[in-house]
Amino acid sequence: MSINMFGRIFTVSTWGESHGPAIGVMIDGCPPRIPLDAAMIQHWLDRRRPGQNSFTSQRREADAVEILSGIFEGQTTGTPIQLMIRNIDQRSRDYTSIRDTFRPGHADYTYWKKYGIRDYRGGGRSSARETAARVAAGGVAREVLKSLLPALHIIGYMVQIGPHAIDRQRMDIAQIDTNPFWSPDPDIVETWSDFLRATRKAGDSIGALVEVRATGMPTGLGAPVYGKLDGDLAAAMMSINAVKAVEIGDGLGVVTLKGSENADEMLPAEGGVAFQSNRAGGILGGISSGQDLIVRFAIKPAASILIPRRTINTDNTPNEIITKGRHDPCVGIRAVPVGEAMMACVLADHLLLHRAQTGS
Amino acid sequence: MSINMFGRIFTVSTWGESHGPAIGVMIDGCPPRIPLDAAMIQHWLDRRRPGQNSFTSQRREADAVEILSGIFEGQTTGTPIQLMIRNIDQRSRDYTSIRDTFRPGHADYTYWKKYGIRDYRGGGRSSARETAARVAAGGVAREVLKSLLPALHIIGYMVQIGPHAIDRQRMDIAQIDTNPFWSPDPDIVETWSDFLRATRKAGDSIGALVEVRATGMPTGLGAPVYGKLDGDLAAAMMSINAVKAVEIGDGLGVVTLKGSENADEMLPAEGGVAFQSNRAGGILGGISSGQDLIVRFAIKPAASILIPRRTINTDNTPNEIITKGRHDPCVGIRAVPVGEAMMACVLADHLLLHRAQTGS
Amino acid sequence: MSINMFGRIFTVSTWGESHGPAIGVMIDGCPPRIPLDAAMIQHWLDRRRPGQNSFTSQRREADAVEILSGIFEGQTTGTPIQLMIRNIDQRSRDYTSIRDTFRPGHADYTYWKKYGIRDYRGGGRSSARETAARVAAGGVAREVLKSLLPALHIIGYMVQIGPHAIDRQRMDIAQIDTNPFWSPDPDIVETWSDFLRATRKAGDSIGALVEVRATGMPTGLGAPVYGKLDGDLAAAMMSINAVKAVEIGDGLGVVTLKGSENADEMLPAEGGVAFQSNRAGGILGGISSGQDLIVRFAIKPAASILIPRRTINTDNTPNEIITKGRHDPCVGIRAVPVGEAMMACVLADHLLLHRAQTGS
Amino acid sequence: MSINMFGRIFTVSTWGESHGPAIGVMIDGCPPRIPLDAAMIQHWLDRRRPGQNSFTSQRREADAVEILSGIFEGQTTGTPIQLMIRNIDQRSRDYTSIRDTFRPGHADYTYWKKYGIRDYRGGGRSSARETAARVAAGGVAREVLKSLLPALHIIGYMVQIGPHAIDRQRMDIAQIDTNPFWSPDPDIVETWSDFLRATRKAGDSIGALVEVRATGMPTGLGAPVYGKLDGDLAAAMMSINAVKAVEIGDGLGVVTLKGSENADEMLPAEGGVAFQSNRAGGILGGISSGQDLIVRFAIKPAASILIPRRTINTDNTPNEIITKGRHDPCVGIRAVPVGEAMMACVLADHLLLHRAQTGS
Repeated sequence: MSINMFGRIFTVSTWGESHGPAIGVMIDGCPPRIPLDAAMIQHWLDRRRPGQNSFTSQRREADAVEILSGIFEGQTTGTPIQLMIRNIDQRSRDYTSIRDTFRPGHADYTYWKKYGIRDYRGGGRSSARETAARVAAGGVAREVLKSLLPALHIIGYMVQIGPHAIDRQRMDIAQIDTNPFWSPDPDIVETWSDFLRATRKAGDSIGALVEVRATGMPTGLGAPVYGKLDGDLAAAMMSINAVKAVEIGDGLGVVTLKGSENADEMLPAEGGVAFQSNRAGGILGGISSGQDLIVRFAIKPAASILIPRRTINTDNTPNEIITKGRHDPCVGIRAVPVGEAMMACVLADHLLLHRAQTGS
Repeated sequence: MSINMFGRIFTVSTWGESHGPAIGVMIDGCPPRIPLDAAMIQHWLDRRRPGQNSFTSQRREADAVEILSGIFEGQTTGTPIQLMIRNIDQRSRDYTSIRDTFRPGHADYTYWKKYGIRDYRGGGRSSARETAARVAAGGVAREVLKSLLPALHIIGYMVQIGPHAIDRQRMDIAQIDTNPFWSPDPDIVETWSDFLRATRKAGDSIGALVEVRATGMPTGLGAPVYGKLDGDLAAAMMSINAVKAVEIGDGLGVVTLKGSENADEMLPAEGGVAFQSNRAGGILGGISSGQDLIVRFAIKPAASILIPRRTINTDNTPNEIITKGRHDPCVGIRAVPVGEAMMACVLADHLLLHRAQTGS
Repeated sequence: MSINMFGRIFTVSTWGESHGPAIGVMIDGCPPRIPLDAAMIQHWLDRRRPGQNSFTSQRREADAVEILSGIFEGQTTGTPIQLMIRNIDQRSRDYTSIRDTFRPGHADYTYWKKYGIRDYRGGGRSSARETAARVAAGGVAREVLKSLLPALHIIGYMVQIGPHAIDRQRMDIAQIDTNPFWSPDPDIVETWSDFLRATRKAGDSIGALVEVRATGMPTGLGAPVYGKLDGDLAAAMMSINAVKAVEIGDGLGVVTLKGSENADEMLPAEGGVAFQSNRAGGILGGISSGQDLIVRFAIKPAASILIPRRTINTDNTPNEIITKGRHDPCVGIRAVPVGEAMMACVLADHLLLHRAQTGS
Repeated sequence: MSINMFGRIFTVSTWGESHGPAIGVMIDGCPPRIPLDAAMIQHWLDRRRPGQNSFTSQRREADAVEILSGIFEGQTTGTPIQLMIRNIDQRSRDYTSIRDTFRPGHADYTYWKKYGIRDYRGGGRSSARETAARVAAGGVAREVLKSLLPALHIIGYMVQIGPHAIDRQRMDIAQIDTNPFWSPDPDIVETWSDFLRATRKAGDSIGALVEVRATGMPTGLGAPVYGKLDGDLAAAMMSINAVKAVEIGDGLGVVTLKGSENADEMLPAEGGVAFQSNRAGGILGGISSGQDLIVRFAIKPAASILIPRRTINTDNTPNEIITKGRHDPCVGIRAVPVGEAMMACVLADHLLLHRAQTGS
């Protein structure tokens, strides 16, 4: 199992560095005869693209995806799908300032200690740019899900930026696409705008909490014990750059819950069961219950800030560093489409795995 | 990759149901010539064993481990290590009450929907009993780590039960083994005792938050992008029964942090770097930094309670259920050694993976 | 992926040494609700068992299989199936003669060089005894195939012992079970009997060629490029002890064939195609064509013979060795059921993999 | 595990169709700081390239490899290495003649039955063109081996074309590069030339037998039971297009050998053991013995011939087909560098796996 791959049947392998010739992703195990073209994938890349608004990085990549294999006459063939995105906007910046200095909070130091070599230009492999490949893979996964599970719908949104959380009473999925923060609560948009402007002005950055939800879920996805749906989702989300926590359903909230509050009661319903609550987030024993799947992840504030931080050089001498350039006051915003993509990939994989074992 | 296996090189495959003849675990890829006998593994099983005190389940299993393969004259041979624990105390209880009724908050319903069959006796494969196999595997992993990384030390402890969190100012690792809660804060023990007695008396249960920490960490464990150390730890911890959230380092706390607060500053130090804080929990870019590795996970309250809950039967008629029997007011207590074991397994695996790729 | 496991979805992990407490196998990913009990598996173990006739080893193991998990009320549950066979007949032999001496043609030397330790009793992990675990797994795989592909039939037989090959004109599948050699050609039985008696009298052993065939094959099993059905069959057969060559269809015979002879012509037929020959052995481009699947493998003569052979000791001094004890003049005979079992496992796995990707 | 991937640690995933925009390969798990540039890989592609001489296909691809990731300043970084080869010479041929007709001996029929769709242009994914990606991966593997095992040398050569086998008495490794057949026996070159000219003139094709050998082998590569070195080599070679048999050491020859002949005797020698023969082909119990590693594989004659063959159309009507175009009378010639590449990849992977488990 490649260390840059995830999935068991619908497998996703990403590759590429921020400032190399290209980044990309190979999807293997995709069902055949799924309608697919570059535009369907481009749609999701465009959603993710930086430079969309004043709160995300100004790097202006076209992020144009090329399909190199696995598609014939507008359909998947069942063979590996290779997607490539050329790196265009590799500004001829001078990266020598970080060549010999480790940026605190970045992977500079650990890559160096592990490999004894690092592509320091823009973070290399550890750049958030890698997430474009995930979003492209998610685009493929969504088409698979659309064919096999037409009722399924995946949507991600921001639930907290710094100290400012949405009011869940005001949640309205229809609002998500209408503001630059993917906020389902329209009333918080101005608060976040003001807060992020101040954060940027201070040369600082801030953390965020993102939620991704799937509605129209089938029952039965997941498997004991290390094939659990929540285990795979946790790994998928935690593998996104800067993620430091993953919650399913009530998540950390279960710590203070009593058993009598926590277990979601069931009533009979036509065509199945009517759960009376969804603290479990749609997963019991690692297997989907048919309720909405609910996952949250916390993104740390970007380490690239204008406030000087103490660090060391590769020769172990002290230094101070600020990171100039095009950086986001809240990288969590761009993580929303990435979280959606990861959920799509995990669900496509588990759908095929479930079909393998049970035939349904 | 088996759905009941984890790891890439040091692989752990657990098997068995709560009320079948036995449970067990196969460890493959273990380095040869590691000293190992049943007593070394039994040590950790004894720590986990229920019936240790009045706050954990009264099921009295000897949980005696048998080594069936892979050991010769007190040493590992490099071939698969099969460990078996016979199920002794399968009380001739009457499980017919749950044969046709789904316990809310349990995996009864989802197993049934997925497989169309379930071993309803004691939860079958989804029973917490499965975690004994993980603890046994963890015992093997610890011996590997002791041989290859003698400075490494893994310790788990309880940090919160219901609303009552420890005071980190009072944290003292030496206290952990002196109380039935694995508490590092001696002053909270009485609070927790009282609280859990009341919880049990009410026929209810409560959630908990467990932290596992590794000190003496090497740098370089982990790998981009889906071989990240934090991604694997998240999957490992989330796969433990009843876990609903996993945090690394500051975890959810990063949401409200500024970048200027979050990035751990570095100063030169003899023999390496001196980090000025450890919000990252010892992982940067998915690779260990040499700082303490810090993972937390939230355990939901046990669903087996004496308070009646509404549910349905397999024929979709309504019912009410209470779960009698030997059950814990706080299953989180027993999860502490399980979390330690999972971390040991993940670190042993990543140590071998790192050695494979880099030779060091 | 464990180094003692094979398969992608229907995974088989064997464990155990010849003279340890037990050997066994874990099957994971098995479909649920497949009827299964110990007797169904025992049937195949009994076929394989040594001591069946005067031409196979006189070790008298009951080889009684115990099901430890994964079965409930006579059906698979979809969870891991653990099968264990206790080692009973571990004669209190004196193995010290081989403790410090490497038997030529055995794995003694290579295990020692790799691991620096070896369980020398009876070959340890490299003993042919390990194949009992494969046969047990094959028994499970056959039940899966019986449920999902009722028309499929797998049969193995001997086609050559030493210089004496069967006459394919006389091939009669019904004969296979009527003689101790699994010969489909009744006329060669006496020749082989005489030949093997002479071989044993000379204290020597002899090689063999085994063929395994599946009839009633579906089309579409297999996948490009490293998921090829023939690639997986080759690995499966080559992994059996003492196998040195694997052929598909015409196998080595294709070297001298012209293209005009080799390509199997097709004619239309009701319900599909009528291939005019089967040189391909039922596989084109790594995917099954629906024709009979034909695999052959060559087994080297057992290295345990009564004729002294030169070797070295662990201290690199010269020695001579003969191997006394219960050994077969032609281990190839016992490999027939093993080859069948491996084919059953590979087909069960590919059936599930095909179902995963294509839904059929 | 992707179905288009092989390897456990040094993993190789190929992608691409004959007539799509490009083919390529991703190598993951490669050790860092291995010197590598495009020219080193191009060297091996140039050796494989068709159009080299009058006996191989006249398709004239530049086969220029581009490195898209994983290399920085002339060294591997430890991150995924993506190699791409653009398909240039996709002659604007008319493939409609095979769009609706299955070529006998090709994968046309089985891909169609499996996927319900096929990229019929030039064989799509099942084209021998895919092997260029393997050769590129082999180029990377060779650099890894050169760094870690400088004494190791891998060489492939032709040992039989049709009925004409080399005389092993005349074998001279130095001759291999001096003739268009990779023949180590200079005296057979004219025979083969004449034979292949006649074969082409007849519009026919012929099979071949290729041997690949590694000298300077370390002991200890491989692992029980499904991580056997011979098992992985068998899968690797059998996965090459048109291969129908794989032999290790004496291969099929062991069928007629006696045990007294087969087991390679050992004598003490300075610095180790002196094997007195090498019938085992350098592998005992799945683990390398330090002797030369010897693998052979049989390639069937190309199915693309000018002699009409009976077949069916997709609508199950009868047809006759001849395959015009640039095709080889003996595709086995081009398989020689592919076999070398596969051995290099398998050895690089097993070297890392061995290092993981044993540290050496």
